[in-house]
Amino acid sequence: MTSLKKRLSVILSRPQKPENIGLAARAMKNTGFENLFLVGMDKLDRKSFVTAVHSQEILDRAKFFPNLLEATSDMNIILASTKKKRKNFPLLSLDDAVSKIFDFPDKTRVGLLFGNEITGLTSEELSLANFYFTIPQYGDQPSYNLASAVLLTLFSIYTYGKQTSDILEEMPLPKQEQEECIQRILEKLENKKFIRPDNKRHMTQRIFSLFGRLALTDKDKKLLLAIFSKGPDSFK
Amino acid sequence: MTSLKKRLSVILSRPQKPENIGLAARAMKNTGFENLFLVGMDKLDRKSFVTAVHSQEILDRAKFFPNLLEATSDMNIILASTKKKRKNFPLLSLDDAVSKIFDFPDKTRVGLLFGNEITGLTSEELSLANFYFTIPQYGDQPSYNLASAVLLTLFSIYTYGKQTSDILEEMPLPKQEQEECIQRILEKLENKKFIRPDNKRHMTQRIFSLFGRLALTDKDKKLLLAIFSKGPDSFK
Repeated sequence: MTSLKKRLSVILSRPQKPENIGLAARAMKNTGFENLFLVGMDKLDRKSFVTAVHSQEILDRAKFFPNLLEATSDMNIILASTKKKRKNFPLLSLDDAVSKIFDFPDKTRVGLLFGNEITGLTSEELSLANFYFTIPQYGDQPSYNLASAVLLTLFSIYTYGKQTSDILEEMPLPKQEQEECIQRILEKLENKKFIRPDNKRHMTQRIFSLFGRLALTDKDKKLLLAIFSKGPDSFK
Repeated sequence: MTSLKKRLSVILSRPQKPENIGLAARAMKNTGFENLFLVGMDKLDRKSFVTAVHSQEILDRAKFFPNLLEATSDMNIILASTKKKRKNFPLLSLDDAVSKIFDFPDKTRVGLLFGNEITGLTSEELSLANFYFTIPQYGDQPSYNLASAVLLTLFSIYTYGKQTSDILEEMPLPKQEQEECIQRILEKLENKKFIRPDNKRHMTQRIFSLFGRLALTDKDKKLLLAIFSKGPDSFK
């Protein structure tokens, strides 16, 4: 994955709105990519730098090409984002396109190609791509904004096979201690006659299922036992 | 999934840039959602309509709220997008947060909460959420643009594969009732002097974070209020 940062390039062909170029750069920064190729233009508008929050260096290092052929000349595979279908050419889902990238050897130079906001990629531009992919969407209109298409594609690549929730700072207690804590709550409730012989079985089950869901940590335990025990002094 | 369109709302709390509101609406349209709740504002800037390409009707139907509590009052679960860690509160990955949504019964009203572009969600705003999630990113800076965060979240929900995890039987209460239940517990603890002026802020936060994690159902509420209604001295 580290090396994909170096060998993957985002290619924007004939982008129209400078704001989108800046937003695409921000999306690249967010997802850890840095090579931006701009086709059919030779300089950036100041507006691009405004939307490229904390990502201006990507714009500073962007490369300009007069045409797509030159931009892609040393790439090994080109994946083009499009909604156009073409005979005998499979239109991959975004997911499949992303997993395709990882099917190739890890020195493969990858180009992700996005077309103009209004026209999309022309047939000629598409003919330079190895794979076409389309980003799933709910209806026909509107299409994804150009920068949004870049973001969704890069995010899928960046998170490919590796999203994990942050680990809790505090570990739940060993199960036995969780049980003991709940037992102590039960005792308090029995002393208070909230739990009585006639409802004991049922209430015990309910209390366990309520507090069990919390996967109690040591801090939870202290808080709960303070609440159910002496009061303010026991808790700090 | 069809019904999720109706029962899921995107909540933008104190959004600052009108362009982002329009882009968020477009992201909603792209992914098939339609309920936009705007907190801390009472009208839309014309600029929002410019970026909401083919999605203006979502802005036309957006609802305005003076504060987050009112905006969320009838929701069952609130998932907040944040980078802030909070003790004892798991910070879910986007994937896990999305799959969490599908764990709940298919009438559950879901709020997706996003904060201000600069400040993010405040602690107070976060305390109204049942779950926190964070969208994975490569480095620390820049964070995702507000509209990008909305887009990535909705896209993950929209493309969520058909999973077969068991669905919970009981739906969490509307958020307002969850809050009221926790408030009543707090009152009991204040009466008992467990919560005092000097620890009120801290304890309130801890109690909210403990009981908030439960995404309280009606049965939970009855049980807890029964437990805590035995009177201020009942747990001495």
